[in-house]
Amino acid sequence: MKIKPLGERIVIKVLESEEKTKSGIVLPDTAKEKPQMGEVLAVGSGKTLDNGQKVPMEVKVGDKILFAKYAGTEVKVDGEEYMVLKESDVLAILE
Amino acid sequence: MKIKPLGERIVIKVLESEEKTKSGIVLPDTAKEKPQMGEVLAVGSGKTLDNGQKVPMEVKVGDKILFAKYAGTEVKVDGEEYMVLKESDVLAILE
Amino acid sequence: MKIKPLGERIVIKVLESEEKTKSGIVLPDTAKEKPQMGEVLAVGSGKTLDNGQKVPMEVKVGDKILFAKYAGTEVKVDGEEYMVLKESDVLAILE
Amino acid sequence: MKIKPLGERIVIKVLESEEKTKSGIVLPDTAKEKPQMGEVLAVGSGKTLDNGQKVPMEVKVGDKILFAKYAGTEVKVDGEEYMVLKESDVLAILE
Amino acid sequence: MKIKPLGERIVIKVLESEEKTKSGIVLPDTAKEKPQMGEVLAVGSGKTLDNGQKVPMEVKVGDKILFAKYAGTEVKVDGEEYMVLKESDVLAILE
Amino acid sequence: MKIKPLGERIVIKVLESEEKTKSGIVLPDTAKEKPQMGEVLAVGSGKTLDNGQKVPMEVKVGDKILFAKYAGTEVKVDGEEYMVLKESDVLAILE
Amino acid sequence: MKIKPLGERIVIKVLESEEKTKSGIVLPDTAKEKPQMGEVLAVGSGKTLDNGQKVPMEVKVGDKILFAKYAGTEVKVDGEEYMVLKESDVLAILE
Repeated sequence: MKIKPLGERIVIKVLESEEKTKSGIVLPDTAKEKPQMGEVLAVGSGKTLDNGQKVPMEVKVGDKILFAKYAGTEVKVDGEEYMVLKESDVLAILE
Repeated sequence: MKIKPLGERIVIKVLESEEKTKSGIVLPDTAKEKPQMGEVLAVGSGKTLDNGQKVPMEVKVGDKILFAKYAGTEVKVDGEEYMVLKESDVLAILE
Repeated sequence: MKIKPLGERIVIKVLESEEKTKSGIVLPDTAKEKPQMGEVLAVGSGKTLDNGQKVPMEVKVGDKILFAKYAGTEVKVDGEEYMVLKESDVLAILE
Repeated sequence: MKIKPLGERIVIKVLESEEKTKSGIVLPDTAKEKPQMGEVLAVGSGKTLDNGQKVPMEVKVGDKILFAKYAGTEVKVDGEEYMVLKESDVLAILE
Repeated sequence: MKIKPLGERIVIKVLESEEKTKSGIVLPDTAKEKPQMGEVLAVGSGKTLDNGQKVPMEVKVGDKILFAKYAGTEVKVDGEEYMVLKESDVLAILE
Repeated sequence: MKIKPLGERIVIKVLESEEKTKSGIVLPDTAKEKPQMGEVLAVGSGKTLDNGQKVPMEVKVGDKILFAKYAGTEVKVDGEEYMVLKESDVLAILE
Repeated sequence: MKIKPLGERIVIKVLESEEKTKSGIVLPDTAKEKPQMGEVLAVGSGKTLDNGQKVPMEVKVGDKILFAKYAGTEVKVDGEEYMVLKESDVLAILE
């Protein structure tokens, strides 16, 4: 089963501390309980501007991203937990 | 009797836990009391932008959707319970 | 005496429980005290967009509508009670 | 002395209960202390849209109007009390 | 020393009760402590719309105006008290 | 070291009471603790409108300005205190 | 590992008091605990306007900036602490 996010939304898999250690990335202590890093699994078709134009998404599938704390909605599909968030809640891409 | 939603609204049938088990989808425990999955029964004509243009709906009748908690309005028509919500409250389509 | 609503507003007659029973429509128990169904008696000329364009109304006189709880303003004209609301508070048309 | 309202504003004379009885119009009991009907004495030049265009006023001098409770500002000029309100606070015109 | 208001702002001299009596204008009792009438001493260059266009000011120097209670900022220049307010806080011009 | 404000921001030197006395300008007593007058030291490139157009700044270096109380952010550079504020917080220019 | 900020965001390294002393810049005492100066390490592609146009960033890599208190989000990547903020939270560039 596939999750296709709408508009400017993306679906991510939140990356746990173990994976962070592997990639050498650690989030500050105060954010330990609520990780801010994820891997993009699916992206929407983009935001629709007031002139009807679609804005292409900046993030793409496979990107490692930092996202704003408290952003997004957790969902569980086929026993797996994902998070749906808006691209505007993505702070940066890690390259 | 048919319900025709206005503008960017859609009418959905909320999918109960039993149906979720069949399709292999389970929502997180904290969301058990307020399901977030539904099947689209009717869609509006789309949102009107500030330039007068109509934005075509991304969701269509028959889509299985995830929607934001606390979104929408419950209505009962002919003894059946439905929910009317805005497309912007739809997080993702399940395919 | 006629009530001509302004802009994107409409005038409705709120439909009481008795009428609902006749048409086979019942609202959920929690909404019993504040019905959400009405019949459209008059519609305004439509909303004016930021580019000066008028958006034609989607609802028309005679439509049976579902409307958002707490929306609108009650008025009494010639001893009859009506409700003035914005089309954006109309959830759906019942056909 | 004349009062010339600015932009999308209008000046009205609030109609008291006696006048309402004459015209056969009565407001609901809960609104008795704060009448919602008035007669338009002067209208502004209209709202300016974001593209610089002026929107012509829908209400005109002499119109009997219903207006939203708590809307507008009371003023007293030459010993007479008037109310200045925005056209967007006018619910409907009574014809 | 001259005060040149910016954008859609105006500078007014608040008119005291004595002046009001002369012109035959009295404000309601509840507004006695905070007068709502003034004379325009200077006007800005006008509001800039989102398309870059300047909206010409409707009020001009010398106009007697009614303005919204609690609007504006009091300033004292060369020992004289003035008030700076936005044209959108001007309710009406008295002619 | 120079401070170059961004967008519609300006950098001012707040003028103290002594300087005010020299120029004959006094602010009302209630504003004594938080002066509202300043001299413009630097201006940004102007606000960017929604159509991409830059709005030229109305204030220029050297202008004496009145600004809204509680507006702006105090900064100290090279031991000197300055204030960064938006042009929209400037009430008027003193000429 | 590189951090690529999205849209109108930038990544900065917050400058500590020691560095400030070197450059001769000191922030006011009340801001000691939460420094307001930083050096820009990476800039996004710019804000997208409602007409689809990208606004070029005013700040560039290497700029020393003053930024609004409480703005931005702290992140730690490869053991180093950074801050992600929007260009609109940048008050001024120090030259």
